[in-house]
Amino acid sequence: MGDANISQHLPVYVVIMAGGAGTRFWPQSRLAKPKQFLNLWGEESILAATVRRALLLTSPERCLIMTEELYGDIVKEIVPHIPAENIICEPVNRDTAPCLGLAAMKIQERCENAIMIVLPSDHYIEDEEAFVRTLQRAANWAAHHPDLTTIGIKPSAPQTAYGYLDCGKARGKGVYEVKKFLEKPSLPLAKQFVSGGNYLWNSGIFIWQTNVLLGAMKEHLPELGALLANWQQIENKSQRDAMLQLEYVLAPKISIDYGIMEKAINVAVVPADFCWDDVGSWQALEKYLPKDEKANSLADNGRHVGIDTKHCIISVDTGLVATIGLEDMVIVRQGDILLIAPRERDQEVKKMVQKLAALGLEEYL
Amino acid sequence: MGDANISQHLPVYVVIMAGGAGTRFWPQSRLAKPKQFLNLWGEESILAATVRRALLLTSPERCLIMTEELYGDIVKEIVPHIPAENIICEPVNRDTAPCLGLAAMKIQERCENAIMIVLPSDHYIEDEEAFVRTLQRAANWAAHHPDLTTIGIKPSAPQTAYGYLDCGKARGKGVYEVKKFLEKPSLPLAKQFVSGGNYLWNSGIFIWQTNVLLGAMKEHLPELGALLANWQQIENKSQRDAMLQLEYVLAPKISIDYGIMEKAINVAVVPADFCWDDVGSWQALEKYLPKDEKANSLADNGRHVGIDTKHCIISVDTGLVATIGLEDMVIVRQGDILLIAPRERDQEVKKMVQKLAALGLEEYL
Repeated sequence: MGDANISQHLPVYVVIMAGGAGTRFWPQSRLAKPKQFLNLWGEESILAATVRRALLLTSPERCLIMTEELYGDIVKEIVPHIPAENIICEPVNRDTAPCLGLAAMKIQERCENAIMIVLPSDHYIEDEEAFVRTLQRAANWAAHHPDLTTIGIKPSAPQTAYGYLDCGKARGKGVYEVKKFLEKPSLPLAKQFVSGGNYLWNSGIFIWQTNVLLGAMKEHLPELGALLANWQQIENKSQRDAMLQLEYVLAPKISIDYGIMEKAINVAVVPADFCWDDVGSWQALEKYLPKDEKANSLADNGRHVGIDTKHCIISVDTGLVATIGLEDMVIVRQGDILLIAPRERDQEVKKMVQKLAALGLEEYL
Repeated sequence: MGDANISQHLPVYVVIMAGGAGTRFWPQSRLAKPKQFLNLWGEESILAATVRRALLLTSPERCLIMTEELYGDIVKEIVPHIPAENIICEPVNRDTAPCLGLAAMKIQERCENAIMIVLPSDHYIEDEEAFVRTLQRAANWAAHHPDLTTIGIKPSAPQTAYGYLDCGKARGKGVYEVKKFLEKPSLPLAKQFVSGGNYLWNSGIFIWQTNVLLGAMKEHLPELGALLANWQQIENKSQRDAMLQLEYVLAPKISIDYGIMEKAINVAVVPADFCWDDVGSWQALEKYLPKDEKANSLADNGRHVGIDTKHCIISVDTGLVATIGLEDMVIVRQGDILLIAPRERDQEVKKMVQKLAALGLEEYL
């Protein structure tokens, strides 16, 4: 599809954020192989699906994948069609603001100004045509306005795990002003947002010009802005990379939401036409899994035989799981690790991983 | 200790029954490695402990282990100190009556008449001195009386998984007549037995002269008696073994309890001085396992980390089992097989194994 429809003036780059390691799918996701690299649903890994969608928006040469040293090889293996120089490993993880500053700088090494589309690497997106349509609208807007544009999702429930956008008046066809960028709310507040009607979920998908982002960083995160400006001034690329390698750790560890989006006044939102899900837990994953006649959800390759077992989520890498009299449980086996929990407590998996770390059981993280 | 104290006249042989494959400890016990070969409790396998106790009663040369072809090698490995010719593999499994008939015949190949002590191979026995004392009393009785002598256990609960002995008057010091040999009762009947005071559990431990047993077989199981008599008449040992190999399948498939003990009138019982347990399920095993501070029982080598987890029975061969919010569950992993069930349903493990067989999943049996 390329970017011909988006902007006559500016090339379109897609930046996929594939660093970081969530723990909510532990033990299927591990420190060495986080969620984005797994086939949690469907036939391809979540990252591979994200890259496939990115290539509906731009060419492989303009698709950048931001990750960490630890994951460089696995990314190359999963998306061999992306040029190796586009797989950028951050020297250390400093959260999303420095990561996207670095991405903007890497794009500007190639072209003075560009449209930069930011995609998280671990989302489920159903209607890809609608995805492209929405992104084209946002990219068009960003090409002609010095805005930080985001994609908003119509809330289907009072989720407390997402940030919200308080939306104002229309600024164009399918584009709205964002009055306020709101952090993850309490449940009463989330309920209020959902019933309010003018709130959208923050999808974590952003669209802006590299110049606009770097300008916002200078304004709202001056320390980071100064670091980026210093690096950009080094003309010799290998010197620049060496300095970056050395100094990246000095960047403030802060997310793009906290660091920029909540402070900026030039924020616009394009409501999504597509179905979106960040699939943040075993329970959330359930709806994408095949079911047996007792409403048990089965992921991965293992076999399940149940007596009087229903509404369980079962993911075993190999072998057999035999259950008697179980209901509403999550059962996950990966290698020599086994997790068993009631489905309504799947959010505590994170706590379990913390407990294992506190016990010094690194081999199981 | 030898048999000097037991009988001046008759040598003492101990026959350990180590064939058959229970399924109640599946998947830790498997078709290829049933309960008696596992270290379910303590440091030694259950068979090894049984043989150790047998050698408090007789010499290795007079200790016979009855098993099946499938288990011949594993028995040799576990008890290398028992002469190989004393490990006797039944041609096929025909239940305990033919097995003990064969054992009696094998003993009579070596000596005309002997005291034969029969020990199941999968029991837990705590006080070994008391065990020896009780067995010596029974062997002494059997040496001087043509009785089928059994060891009775004082019931601690109305168990429906055991047979009961309805005991009559004393026939000697610590020896009583058995009025009736009763099959596994219903719960109301079991309660009646326990409150009655004159009922004991049938331990499955028997003591008799080989001549007395073979006489009882001729009387109560004439078909089996005739087969045994025919084989005994063949003077050439290799011809006898060949005929046995050929004809053993013709023996009636029946237990010693059904086939002999329930019919015989010459039954005596010596109440046990020792603690006895046939440890017939995961729940029954629990009391022999170490506990953590939340009353979880831990068997085998794996590691358990729980959040809000209590009173579970956990046996994992290796690796980690992480549990959140579990109570009163049995969790067993052995190789690539995992079993999860509420503890009060552990008797249904047998049903699970039957289901797997019906599904053709032989690799998991």
